[in-house]
Amino acid sequence: MSRVYNFSAGPAVLPEEVLKQAAAEMLDYNGCGMSINEMSHRSKTFDNVIQTAEQDIRDLMNIPDNYKVLFLQGGASQQFAAVPLNLMKNKKAGYIITGQWAKKAYQEAQKYGEAVELASSADKTFSYIPDCSDLDIADDLDYVYICENNTIYGTKFKTLPNTKGKILVSDVSSCFLSEPVDVTKYGVIYAGVQKNVGPAGLAIVIIREDLVKDELEFPTPTMLKWKTQVDAKSLYNTPNSWAIYICGKVFKWIKKQGGLEAMKKINEKKAKILYDYLEKSKLFINDVDKNSRSIMNVVFRTGNEELDAKFVAEAKENNIVTIKGHRLVGGMRASIYNAMPIEGVEALVKFMEKFEKENA
Amino acid sequence: MSRVYNFSAGPAVLPEEVLKQAAAEMLDYNGCGMSINEMSHRSKTFDNVIQTAEQDIRDLMNIPDNYKVLFLQGGASQQFAAVPLNLMKNKKAGYIITGQWAKKAYQEAQKYGEAVELASSADKTFSYIPDCSDLDIADDLDYVYICENNTIYGTKFKTLPNTKGKILVSDVSSCFLSEPVDVTKYGVIYAGVQKNVGPAGLAIVIIREDLVKDELEFPTPTMLKWKTQVDAKSLYNTPNSWAIYICGKVFKWIKKQGGLEAMKKINEKKAKILYDYLEKSKLFINDVDKNSRSIMNVVFRTGNEELDAKFVAEAKENNIVTIKGHRLVGGMRASIYNAMPIEGVEALVKFMEKFEKENA
Repeated sequence: MSRVYNFSAGPAVLPEEVLKQAAAEMLDYNGCGMSINEMSHRSKTFDNVIQTAEQDIRDLMNIPDNYKVLFLQGGASQQFAAVPLNLMKNKKAGYIITGQWAKKAYQEAQKYGEAVELASSADKTFSYIPDCSDLDIADDLDYVYICENNTIYGTKFKTLPNTKGKILVSDVSSCFLSEPVDVTKYGVIYAGVQKNVGPAGLAIVIIREDLVKDELEFPTPTMLKWKTQVDAKSLYNTPNSWAIYICGKVFKWIKKQGGLEAMKKINEKKAKILYDYLEKSKLFINDVDKNSRSIMNVVFRTGNEELDAKFVAEAKENNIVTIKGHRLVGGMRASIYNAMPIEGVEALVKFMEKFEKENA
Repeated sequence: MSRVYNFSAGPAVLPEEVLKQAAAEMLDYNGCGMSINEMSHRSKTFDNVIQTAEQDIRDLMNIPDNYKVLFLQGGASQQFAAVPLNLMKNKKAGYIITGQWAKKAYQEAQKYGEAVELASSADKTFSYIPDCSDLDIADDLDYVYICENNTIYGTKFKTLPNTKGKILVSDVSSCFLSEPVDVTKYGVIYAGVQKNVGPAGLAIVIIREDLVKDELEFPTPTMLKWKTQVDAKSLYNTPNSWAIYICGKVFKWIKKQGGLEAMKKINEKKAKILYDYLEKSKLFINDVDKNSRSIMNVVFRTGNEELDAKFVAEAKENNIVTIKGHRLVGGMRASIYNAMPIEGVEALVKFMEKFEKENA
């Protein structure tokens, strides 16, 4: 077995010790004679898994008691619909368009009401986060929506928008648990876990309890109604128990690293290695606005598609994989999530230096 | 490590060799240096996993080319909404109520249109499948819906209803891949895989292609629109890749057993052992109509709640676990899915005999 440095944007690298534990427990979880994959989600054993996972993420993110934590299927894309279905009253919501995922959420909301574009960075290929300190926010907006870290474009909100009292809804899929966050600033904060936290097929949704309503404006599929899921503690039907189990292990692993403050320091250190090199490189370009740089997804390119392809191919020969940029933008992208060791980033930069010398 | 005989109704027992393979591949799938849990769903490697899985289930079920196969999140419960959202034109559909899950599907359909109860076995606690040879089917019904195997009540349709030309939609969650099936008789056939096939968090949906429509009567969440998922070949967003991977392995395992004809023989043999014993037992009661008996879920009880509890507790001491009946009906339930070895059923009956003798 030889492991690679996997820079995939998601599903993405997981802590090796978590995978080892999962492998060791595959036929017999905790002495109960069966795999977590074979276990009733109504069993005491699984109940303990999900409750512990919830408590651990509450500890990590310092989630106040008046916020509910849900473990749901369907990924962030399903929440694109759940958000307007559960929050729209005036059927009007504001969206800040900073990339593909914000745009998809915005388009989904248009099915149900008026989705207003409050700001956008489309003019410069989403290479920056617009100034959101004084947006034109109408009185009747039901909420303001952002995608906080833009995986494809390598940007992140450094300051949350001034919503002028409106509910803030944030998709944090690609920066989830990468640094401390003040949950009280949000009405709803959610993430597909398959980027920074766990396997695919699970979204974690954190909702201020007063936003969980029984009476909705639209006929809403039971599975998308937050109230159903809150009442059933995420067990309205069989959940993605495997993903919840692995996430639980990752939460423990993050605690062992020192929690989110420690993760932030490590993540900033890893990102700095890459950005510092990119700044001085004469071959590679990162044209993301400095104040909008993501510490999770670092995009770069040579400006020459053939050379980019050569880079990707040669990187692979050097055990540096899934470094190709998103199909919408091309170039390269290094996703350096929590579980990417600093050695991986160092190996990448070393390889980039070598490649630059050879292709000067 | 000591494995138990796990009679859980779902998530449920999986083939041991599949779990062993999954454990062995956890840190390095097929020499690519990463876990299937860490892999981009857009990668060639994963593409091969999902394509192979699709081909294998097509082979097993002999699925005609004009049927699409989808691997979706949200379980059967999500399809309860997807079915009316995608199929209703006249906003009127017929439901045959044979238990809790059919009822939930029926209630969900009422959100969108008129759901008509065509037949029901509620009068006798769902202990039989009603005669569906000559139902009162209105001309404007959009489809006829059944839950083919009723996990909670231990019943199964032995003959499909005469839908008088209307589209038949069937939830086969708890009998999926347990025996051959003539797909051409259905418009839509779907299953949550966590009963007979794989881990939780995946539904496999098989749809006749002419039923996949772009223009729907209701604003439909993108994730619930079959057309989205068909066009994207189940990869509109990140799918539950782990569950798809495990299902793929189970498909191979079923092929190795001899396919669905062979599975049917084994399953009937296992069920016969239990039913034969139940017929002659003076302690245990199974009051399911003989012609409606499920070969997947066998329910029984002593008629005395305390004795039932004693049975469940002592069974556990004998490595026979998750044998308690559903909370709605009490008693016991042995789910004897594909992966339950005949030795498990024999061990159960042996224990039942012993218990009967001791508690005569």
